[in-house]
Amino acid sequence: MELSGSESDGRFTVAFLGPLGTYTHEAAYKRFADHAQYLERKTIADVFSSLSPSVPLGVVPQENSTFGSVIETCNALRGSHPGFVRGEVLLKIDHCLLVRKGVKLDEIRKVMSHEQALGQCQEFLATHLPLATLEKSTSTAAAARALLDNPPECAAICSQICATLFQGLEVLHQGIQGETMNFTRFYVVAHSRETVMPFRHPLDRKALVRISAPKWPSKPSSTPRSIVQLLDSLRLDVTFIDRRPSVSLKPFHDVYFVGVCNFVDEPGRSSEDLWGSWTSEVDEAAERVRRTGGEIDVLGVW
Amino acid sequence: MELSGSESDGRFTVAFLGPLGTYTHEAAYKRFADHAQYLERKTIADVFSSLSPSVPLGVVPQENSTFGSVIETCNALRGSHPGFVRGEVLLKIDHCLLVRKGVKLDEIRKVMSHEQALGQCQEFLATHLPLATLEKSTSTAAAARALLDNPPECAAICSQICATLFQGLEVLHQGIQGETMNFTRFYVVAHSRETVMPFRHPLDRKALVRISAPKWPSKPSSTPRSIVQLLDSLRLDVTFIDRRPSVSLKPFHDVYFVGVCNFVDEPGRSSEDLWGSWTSEVDEAAERVRRTGGEIDVLGVW
Repeated sequence: MELSGSESDGRFTVAFLGPLGTYTHEAAYKRFADHAQYLERKTIADVFSSLSPSVPLGVVPQENSTFGSVIETCNALRGSHPGFVRGEVLLKIDHCLLVRKGVKLDEIRKVMSHEQALGQCQEFLATHLPLATLEKSTSTAAAARALLDNPPECAAICSQICATLFQGLEVLHQGIQGETMNFTRFYVVAHSRETVMPFRHPLDRKALVRISAPKWPSKPSSTPRSIVQLLDSLRLDVTFIDRRPSVSLKPFHDVYFVGVCNFVDEPGRSSEDLWGSWTSEVDEAAERVRRTGGEIDVLGVW
Repeated sequence: MELSGSESDGRFTVAFLGPLGTYTHEAAYKRFADHAQYLERKTIADVFSSLSPSVPLGVVPQENSTFGSVIETCNALRGSHPGFVRGEVLLKIDHCLLVRKGVKLDEIRKVMSHEQALGQCQEFLATHLPLATLEKSTSTAAAARALLDNPPECAAICSQICATLFQGLEVLHQGIQGETMNFTRFYVVAHSRETVMPFRHPLDRKALVRISAPKWPSKPSSTPRSIVQLLDSLRLDVTFIDRRPSVSLKPFHDVYFVGVCNFVDEPGRSSEDLWGSWTSEVDEAAERVRRTGGEIDVLGVW
């Protein structure tokens, strides 16, 4: 077993899609809190390429309930140096109105944020700050940081974590977005399948596999197993099926990312025990798909 | 049966994602040639909302082999006034270098096109026109049209159809894109399922259905039929499975667009006969999914 990286202060390193204060940072903090030190990366691809024995873990966005899958994460997972998914974090996207400590709502003259966040909070802004100037920034975190260099009558719309990141700021209002059902799911990716997860966390018994759809036969007599037959032979509960064009040169030769899970309760078993039996169960499912004539890779078990 | 719209010259009208000269226009022309008159629309949503007894047909892009599904088309098909898919056209995206008639390669000083087309042809440009200025335009068709208002030492990268649309232009080079396996699939959408297809075309025996994934159970005992069981109960060959977030407010409540087909040869049967038996087969498959406990809509049969 490979040891997880640890710095002199005993904390392991978690790379995440930065900058500091993004929702990915908040998701990473939700999962690892102060047990980890956080390494900001500029792109999702950078998070994956950072993974190493000294940076054993990373956190990347996987899917938003409104906007769908994050293509860069899918692409990285089918790339040549993918990480291995070892967990997920579900985060309700809750925009906050941040100000310098002590600033009151009626003092605010300017609100800064990423275009999308300004749009998502337009109802709140129209009702409570109809006269404020709106200023677009490169990210919600950049808006929070800019509060420190601006006159006090400014506010930023951003994630709650920014209030703990930048000294002297505080949350004036929370949950100011119009759409209340906005969730994002993040993956915890590890340097390898063998990476030791740094502290105990309940097992979800989920997994992510990639199945290559069989090339369509030119004649019925040569029919290979269809994608539905391959999904069937998994004999696991399928939570989602995501198609992506293959990276190969064949047009319309597809690859499917398939989420699977096991919801059956097995009370009284230890989490090591469950991890062992669940990983075997996933590997056996993959073996069944291969015997059925399919190509499959296990990209994550958690 | 509803009659297809026909104008005074006897040609029916086909709406397409414009402007004139786009690849969608080329795909529409590949399918209907001079039998149709073409109505350019600015957006995919506009094509769908144009459909009526007097505009019985439309053509929209559905999927590119490199870039994947066209989300707007999916969204329109699950919307409140969708068309009904009655055919598909596969087009190899072949970029051409267009000039005013008589202009030679070594006279070209400027090349205009959409950013993506300029990018896809950069190898050709670097080799054959290393000194030419590159100018971005809003579409490949707009670049072709602009040739008429520019000095003769200009070229445009666009679809071949532009050479027949704009008088005085000619194709200097064809297939100048670097990536040779770039295909786009287009849907022929009709005003309704009953729209009479204006002239005989061989039946593909394909169909498009939309299946709502069962809401995930909170307890194993209440397990509804899973998406794999629903796909299974179609008992048809599945060509692709595309997930989209549901338009409902529930987060991560998914909808699947599923392509099905029947490749079994039935020689000697007329195309009316085959159309009748294939539509019944698709309707029966949908009925099986409903009996299994799934929600399903048939969005196209062709």
